[in-house]
Amino acid sequence: MERSELEDRVAALEERVRTLEDQAAVLRLVASWGPAVDTGGPDGAAAAGALWADDGVLQSDISRLEGPAAITEMVLSDGQEALIRQGSAHVQALPVVTVEGDHATATNYSRVYRLAGDGHEIWRVSANVWELRRTSAGWRVTRRTNHLIDGGPEARELLQRAYR
Amino acid sequence: MERSELEDRVAALEERVRTLEDQAAVLRLVASWGPAVDTGGPDGAAAAGALWADDGVLQSDISRLEGPAAITEMVLSDGQEALIRQGSAHVQALPVVTVEGDHATATNYSRVYRLAGDGHEIWRVSANVWELRRTSAGWRVTRRTNHLIDGGPEARELLQRAYR
Amino acid sequence: MERSELEDRVAALEERVRTLEDQAAVLRLVASWGPAVDTGGPDGAAAAGALWADDGVLQSDISRLEGPAAITEMVLSDGQEALIRQGSAHVQALPVVTVEGDHATATNYSRVYRLAGDGHEIWRVSANVWELRRTSAGWRVTRRTNHLIDGGPEARELLQRAYR
Repeated sequence: MERSELEDRVAALEERVRTLEDQAAVLRLVASWGPAVDTGGPDGAAAAGALWADDGVLQSDISRLEGPAAITEMVLSDGQEALIRQGSAHVQALPVVTVEGDHATATNYSRVYRLAGDGHEIWRVSANVWELRRTSAGWRVTRRTNHLIDGGPEARELLQRAYR
Repeated sequence: MERSELEDRVAALEERVRTLEDQAAVLRLVASWGPAVDTGGPDGAAAAGALWADDGVLQSDISRLEGPAAITEMVLSDGQEALIRQGSAHVQALPVVTVEGDHATATNYSRVYRLAGDGHEIWRVSANVWELRRTSAGWRVTRRTNHLIDGGPEARELLQRAYR
Repeated sequence: MERSELEDRVAALEERVRTLEDQAAVLRLVASWGPAVDTGGPDGAAAAGALWADDGVLQSDISRLEGPAAITEMVLSDGQEALIRQGSAHVQALPVVTVEGDHATATNYSRVYRLAGDGHEIWRVSANVWELRRTSAGWRVTRRTNHLIDGGPEARELLQRAYR
């Protein structure tokens, strides 16, 4: 075998392994959101904000937040604090992840549960598109768009990102 | 180090990376099913069918569909369209994936939620075994067997595939 | 290129691929728990116990089990058998996995569903920290701590492991 052929194979492997690592990093980021917002307090709120890029946006059918500080503030709000004390679980389902260079998207379902009486009820089942960018500090969310699954076109348009 | 030893290590890495990529592809395929059937229309229906091999079967306790065209037709049916307009979410849980050469299986739970009144209700919690084959166009489902978790032996037999 | 440089790159790849394989093995182990306890019988009970290290502990707010034999016994108990016959699904959500050498942690949400009347109800939504150790037989659980999401500090402390 030529020396250069083996070098080419190693370079190809490095590229493939980097993509697998990127996919794993995106899964980890998406799975980290719930624990951060469901624990709250200064640490949880800071961890939730830190998932976002400086210009990152969290857009849902019920609110729009711009930048890590706004997200941290939301987690520290009275409303969120009350939800945490009630017993909340923001659970992300397995996403369809696509990595392209320094950009990635993850499309998935999410559910928010809250304790009500002696059991948990489902508060929201939503569709999500997470758009992410590789930064010098790792992957960060540039935009998460979230919409209640309500039979309307908005949630369906988000879900289409999984296969288009 | 002998030249051949390094070549052997590179060849072993190529095999291991291929298995990791196969596992990721199977996760992606399983996670794509819900978004396709919950968006529907010509694109969603085609995307749902395209996950199946030409001879692929979707067998559940409530229906049996053979081949991509039958699956596409099901997604376009009045019943499925009504479910989509009501607000449905077919959510796949993290599967146990086993890849062996050009074949793979994924065993998991799934839930179907639908909007009812002012919140989502759980319509079905099921057990699934996805059997897949590597084709020239990528991984495709050769058989998905789905059964309601109803305390009977059928669902339990499916779940046993996760550890047998 | 120096021979040694290529060797270094291959060695680095081997390390990275091993970490990816470890992460996949942890996901697989976590996803295997539900199928084992929801099928039960001698095989399911043995499979559930076999996920634990000899000194492994399953600690929850409702019970404490020490070692594989105690876990196997729990799965074979009348209470668990009744739950299985009723129709149960122990579903693990996507965890945040951290691998450090021969130790790993996985932090996630879990839900237990059971059939009630003509549909499934959510029995428990919990927080989990899975602590694992690499053994000669593969990854095994040394401790799983599980607590109902009830608004109290115990579940929140578990979830904090996802981002601390």
